[in-house]
Amino acid sequence: MGSQTNYLGENYTKELETPTNITIKKILGLLMGIIDGDGERKREVISLGIGDPTAHSCFHTTNEAKEAVVESLLIDKFNGYSPSAGLPTTRKAIASYLSRDLCYELSQEDVYITVGCTQAIEIALSFLAKPNSNILLPRPGFPTYALCASFRNIEIRYYDLLPQNNWQLNLEAIEDLVDQNTIAIVIINPGNPCGNVYSYDHLKKIAETAKKVKTLIIADEVYGHLAFGETPFTSMGLFSSITPILTLGSLSKRWLIPGWRLGWFVINDPNCIFKSPKIIEHINNYCDLCASPTTFIQAAVPKIIENTKEDFFKNTLQMLKKNSDICYEKTLEIPCLNCPYKPQGSMVVMVNLNIILLQNIIDDMDFCFKLAKEEYVILLPGTAVGLKNWIRITFAVESSFLEEGLKRLKSFCLRHSKPQNLIN
Amino acid sequence: MGSQTNYLGENYTKELETPTNITIKKILGLLMGIIDGDGERKREVISLGIGDPTAHSCFHTTNEAKEAVVESLLIDKFNGYSPSAGLPTTRKAIASYLSRDLCYELSQEDVYITVGCTQAIEIALSFLAKPNSNILLPRPGFPTYALCASFRNIEIRYYDLLPQNNWQLNLEAIEDLVDQNTIAIVIINPGNPCGNVYSYDHLKKIAETAKKVKTLIIADEVYGHLAFGETPFTSMGLFSSITPILTLGSLSKRWLIPGWRLGWFVINDPNCIFKSPKIIEHINNYCDLCASPTTFIQAAVPKIIENTKEDFFKNTLQMLKKNSDICYEKTLEIPCLNCPYKPQGSMVVMVNLNIILLQNIIDDMDFCFKLAKEEYVILLPGTAVGLKNWIRITFAVESSFLEEGLKRLKSFCLRHSKPQNLIN
Repeated sequence: MGSQTNYLGENYTKELETPTNITIKKILGLLMGIIDGDGERKREVISLGIGDPTAHSCFHTTNEAKEAVVESLLIDKFNGYSPSAGLPTTRKAIASYLSRDLCYELSQEDVYITVGCTQAIEIALSFLAKPNSNILLPRPGFPTYALCASFRNIEIRYYDLLPQNNWQLNLEAIEDLVDQNTIAIVIINPGNPCGNVYSYDHLKKIAETAKKVKTLIIADEVYGHLAFGETPFTSMGLFSSITPILTLGSLSKRWLIPGWRLGWFVINDPNCIFKSPKIIEHINNYCDLCASPTTFIQAAVPKIIENTKEDFFKNTLQMLKKNSDICYEKTLEIPCLNCPYKPQGSMVVMVNLNIILLQNIIDDMDFCFKLAKEEYVILLPGTAVGLKNWIRITFAVESSFLEEGLKRLKSFCLRHSKPQNLIN
Repeated sequence: MGSQTNYLGENYTKELETPTNITIKKILGLLMGIIDGDGERKREVISLGIGDPTAHSCFHTTNEAKEAVVESLLIDKFNGYSPSAGLPTTRKAIASYLSRDLCYELSQEDVYITVGCTQAIEIALSFLAKPNSNILLPRPGFPTYALCASFRNIEIRYYDLLPQNNWQLNLEAIEDLVDQNTIAIVIINPGNPCGNVYSYDHLKKIAETAKKVKTLIIADEVYGHLAFGETPFTSMGLFSSITPILTLGSLSKRWLIPGWRLGWFVINDPNCIFKSPKIIEHINNYCDLCASPTTFIQAAVPKIIENTKEDFFKNTLQMLKKNSDICYEKTLEIPCLNCPYKPQGSMVVMVNLNIILLQNIIDDMDFCFKLAKEEYVILLPGTAVGLKNWIRITFAVESSFLEEGLKRLKSFCLRHSKPQNLIN
């Protein structure tokens, strides 16, 4: 029996290596706390913070999807455990759904069903992790990657997305960042937090760069098909004959059901460069440790995909386009804001804050906290996604709600503008 | 740019540290493969391998539970994300449900909602892990703990459960195994794979031992309340004033809905020995990384708990008692089998294999593979749960199905019995 100094108290907590990442949920919680702390609320809270549109009735999912779930619940055949990688029928349905975007047919064995895209990220990073490994993450990006990498002791190397260049990757910088311990390059397309949609050509160049540096790509396509601008959505998997791609996705965004927790990760590797029996066994072992998504929801997936009408998707895209236009145009009217890229996809956009034009605002965090306090409007400070003095606006809300939020944002900015004679 | 030897091929896979644990799912899959490989099936497969009774209509969940889920799905209020730790109403309902077994009231902040008990295990072990840590696991036990510990680089130290002593813990051995890097002692009660139910006195002694060695207890109560013998179920949390307890559980077993994936881990620590602001922050950070259970199922939990009638639970216990009696008595009739403990809880029992009485059977694995091939009966080899030359039988099936399985088991054993003159 060893010495008894470990009663999980001071010594224990000192040794805990808690990553200090600021998560989106945490910041939004703090912002909401500012408003909640304000005894009696004077007006409605306008949250343009989180990428969850389901609070707005215009962004409700289809009846077909709900009917499919109710049916598979009520027949009493899907209350039990599913295999770790998912029900075979679900894997097959997702393989077939994703193959529409590819030039080859995915096999159901390439598809692992996960608890939303969150678990897909967690599994992908965890099974790839090895001692001294590093991963390339976009900046700005989605902080779950950094949090997960920290917990799995994977070194994070950020590469910059270029706002002046449609938020594209600086490919030369990527070559400099990769070494023999790099497990993957993460790209997010359509982009969160930038609203970017990458062209076929840019994606092909990314694949070629990855091939050159012999590194896997993790393609986060959780916003797959949510492209409403000039550039159509191209699945990264289309370039998997150039370099192996792990594609992550979910039904969450396109079907407007983030709370149903149905995602996937897919090995796009037709030339079996990455896929080996040992790798597959390793992934399967990891999946055995992980919780699977709700079985009766998995069972409903084939019908959800089959029965959803094209009009539903079109309607969502129209609303997102309309709102992104509103968002872009209204922010143009506000002197201290600058939006370098009109969003073409996803549900969010990054707007640059010209702090020098504002008085008594230190930075993006200060901006968002004061905005919450004074206007009951919640925006995400860019710091949460890796870019100081920017803000992320979610436009997947009712248009009138968005307009009201932007109106309050404008009056806040005008009220805090520095008088002309104080600038410079 | 580093040297390019890492194309995730040979070098990469060599470095992958895949734990070599045999998982229950994997072994059962192999056994099923034996039967599937047998061209045309001669008769029904009797699987007494996995602890998932939902394939049998006598073990279907209540209509009240399904109605609660359908209702919360159809109102379109719970399709979005939930907070990382779960919906406040769900946490509150579970806190109140679990407090019935305690002598104090849990707060909803003590409860974290998880994707089944599987994720509760994963989160508990992962957030406790630190460099050089170790954990005490029961042998026989539930292999997910060992798999998870391996992936998190936690050293595993097994302590034996004593079959001749109602599968109780050898508490002296525990004192010898603990050192300053021990993060927890795991106990499973009611027990998987032994069907044990520990008495109030034994649980109290476990708590006192843990206090003596200053170590946290992880109390796996996924089979909580599934006690049908003389010993009533006692929640370990009752002794949390002696030592801090992390209680893991889920609706899976008691409500017969393992595929719904609704579990929890709970910090039972009324004296705040373990709970500190830093620990709570650390847990919350880890939860931010994890996928949450389906929101509309979470939202249904208060009604599921409230509306389920006592008769449903009573009926389940009666069936389990009847089946465990059948299982115990029928195995007594088979010379090469020995069941040292009549199960009092959970859905499984461990039976000892007297290999010396059998011919052409090498061990428990060989026994189960030949049994599958010859009789289409699937049992779990004890090796999968850490005990060679034992088998685990799941009795949560239709009685007639169980009887047929045990009949085939008997004829298999008789057919493979060594003639008397060959036994020393």
